[in-house]
Amino acid sequence: MKKAMHTALLPAGLRDALPEEAEMEAAAVHCLMTAFGRQGYRRVKPPLLEFESSLLTGPGQQLSAQVFRLMDPISQKMMGLRADMTPQIARLATTRLASAPRPLRLCYSGQVLRVRGDQLRPERQFTQAGIEIFGTDAVAAEAEIVLLVVEALRAAGVRGITVDLTLPALAPMVLKGRGLDDAAVAAARRALDAKDAGELRALVNGDETVFGLLEAVGEAREAIARLKRLAIDGEAGMLVDRLSALVGEVTAADPELAVTIDPGEYRGFEYQSGIAFAVFARGVRGEIARGGRYRGEAGETAVGATVYLDSVLRALPRRQPPRRLYLPAGTPRGAARDLKAEGWTVLHGLDAADDTEAEARRLGCSHVLGDGGPVSLD
Amino acid sequence: MKKAMHTALLPAGLRDALPEEAEMEAAAVHCLMTAFGRQGYRRVKPPLLEFESSLLTGPGQQLSAQVFRLMDPISQKMMGLRADMTPQIARLATTRLASAPRPLRLCYSGQVLRVRGDQLRPERQFTQAGIEIFGTDAVAAEAEIVLLVVEALRAAGVRGITVDLTLPALAPMVLKGRGLDDAAVAAARRALDAKDAGELRALVNGDETVFGLLEAVGEAREAIARLKRLAIDGEAGMLVDRLSALVGEVTAADPELAVTIDPGEYRGFEYQSGIAFAVFARGVRGEIARGGRYRGEAGETAVGATVYLDSVLRALPRRQPPRRLYLPAGTPRGAARDLKAEGWTVLHGLDAADDTEAEARRLGCSHVLGDGGPVSLD
Repeated sequence: MKKAMHTALLPAGLRDALPEEAEMEAAAVHCLMTAFGRQGYRRVKPPLLEFESSLLTGPGQQLSAQVFRLMDPISQKMMGLRADMTPQIARLATTRLASAPRPLRLCYSGQVLRVRGDQLRPERQFTQAGIEIFGTDAVAAEAEIVLLVVEALRAAGVRGITVDLTLPALAPMVLKGRGLDDAAVAAARRALDAKDAGELRALVNGDETVFGLLEAVGEAREAIARLKRLAIDGEAGMLVDRLSALVGEVTAADPELAVTIDPGEYRGFEYQSGIAFAVFARGVRGEIARGGRYRGEAGETAVGATVYLDSVLRALPRRQPPRRLYLPAGTPRGAARDLKAEGWTVLHGLDAADDTEAEARRLGCSHVLGDGGPVSLD
Repeated sequence: MKKAMHTALLPAGLRDALPEEAEMEAAAVHCLMTAFGRQGYRRVKPPLLEFESSLLTGPGQQLSAQVFRLMDPISQKMMGLRADMTPQIARLATTRLASAPRPLRLCYSGQVLRVRGDQLRPERQFTQAGIEIFGTDAVAAEAEIVLLVVEALRAAGVRGITVDLTLPALAPMVLKGRGLDDAAVAAARRALDAKDAGELRALVNGDETVFGLLEAVGEAREAIARLKRLAIDGEAGMLVDRLSALVGEVTAADPELAVTIDPGEYRGFEYQSGIAFAVFARGVRGEIARGGRYRGEAGETAVGATVYLDSVLRALPRRQPPRRLYLPAGTPRGAARDLKAEGWTVLHGLDAADDTEAEARRLGCSHVLGDGGPVSLD
């Protein structure tokens, strides 16, 4: 079979998932979607390909460079392969589901493709699963999204979860009206994101409120207390009040959950307009989920979260291989039915084997069916 | 929200699945994959995109016209979006899984895309689920594939299943050595496929064996008896013997299953080299599954089947909507946990409602949580 090896080459960042990984991923997606469904989120399934024009509007704009384009021979228009599902769900909510009652809860899972990987994630195909609530401004919606993502990840087996809350729009609001030009606001925002106190001092000297943002970082209740002492008012103050209310709801509902705040963080939250969050698991590289509040293409308010299955898989312990039971060739197929109903994974022998036990072992079975029932091969 | 409506347009043959359909499909795929896994089929997951050269070798060749092509900016080589998953699984079996013990049982599910739809199936994106056995010639492998597909479809809720067996290679074998040139063999094969006795008479006059193929159609055991009376020998005779053995195994294991034979049928079975089959459900347009024996790209023998979820969904009864329970705003999140564990789908009120029952109805709930537990809204 060597002559086929040359076709084993796949494009960089695209690969085959072998059984252990493929089964873990499918089980995790099933757990997540079941948890979402139990809380009233209805599943939708947009297509992999859309016209470029609809894929790249609203929250999809910033993904433009990541979208594979191809020509539709039927319409002669350019189509794109989705690089993210959230913009599709937002499109669906404001078009075919425009008249569905609000708040509208939707969930989804599927594959996304990106033109290039990056250093952290060289892959170009990812599995996403997610939830969205459309049409309510209530902070209870943010709380539900955060709590449900955590609950679903736990159901899938993820341990040591932490939630990092941020307010990407806060720093620009605070920085404006401090006599800084746009370039200086952007530079100060980057300095806050990077926790670069030296750079920040050069830009805003000793401004107590701005430096206060640098300090209002860490465990959520303590950081909120520090943030409130900064006496930020106006629109920015309302954002702080929302964050405070969210922390209250989340910690009341799930006192064990580790929640932190970093109000100056904004990278990767380019389309979030209010509270945003990222979910991590202790010792696991990369975000497991992220989300927040944004505006859909028709201006409708929404809050949602996307779970990244590649990170989830890194956070999960290896699964115990299932008990596989070898049924010697000629075992009646009806016997298999009963054994499967008892929870066995069965493997039918297709040819008579000289040494049944050796054949069972060769095929990775843990048990073989004897006259009296399954016999362990240990 | 009217201004967003223009972006609702999707390319022809591509569409959004709304909740009822998306949930039915996900549930059916889960049933199928669970049934496959219980019988020792390990799940694999190839990428959506591959190099054109690997996607179109072996059993993938005939799909060339149906594959969307796009340039890989990293390698500057052409890639294709898969139009069928079987060629990918065959590639995997002979490359990364070349040293896995045989018979090798694999299963898969996923999306495939086609450049153009046809009249029967205008869609251009399909969900497939399937099983393959690599590396055994045993007729028991064909029997297992047929029986498992039927069992899995029944588990998913499909009723009235019939299996139509065929031998696409039989007619050319019988027709050769009858003094016909290639064009006449092809014409006679088409006439057999179309049951066109007049055309067939013009080509092979009164040849009893060839006309016998036209008669050996219908209920499997009767048709096999007629086929055997034709005394076909050589390689063609071995095919008939295999088909006879398969009918014996399948009808013994599943006496209630409707099995028919049409030995002259070959359209759509271009890459099948031995027994092939199609699965239908009474009253449902289109095949629900098809499969058969073929040779993988490295020449390894394989037998498998693909289930088409669009046909499965047409065969399934509408699902009962789940009981949805409205939890008035402020209900402790801990209460939801217990109710979900009891099997309820819960919907949290996010804002206080003046009329709780009206709000629950507006959101499609069947019950509302009262002081003493769930209360029906009927």
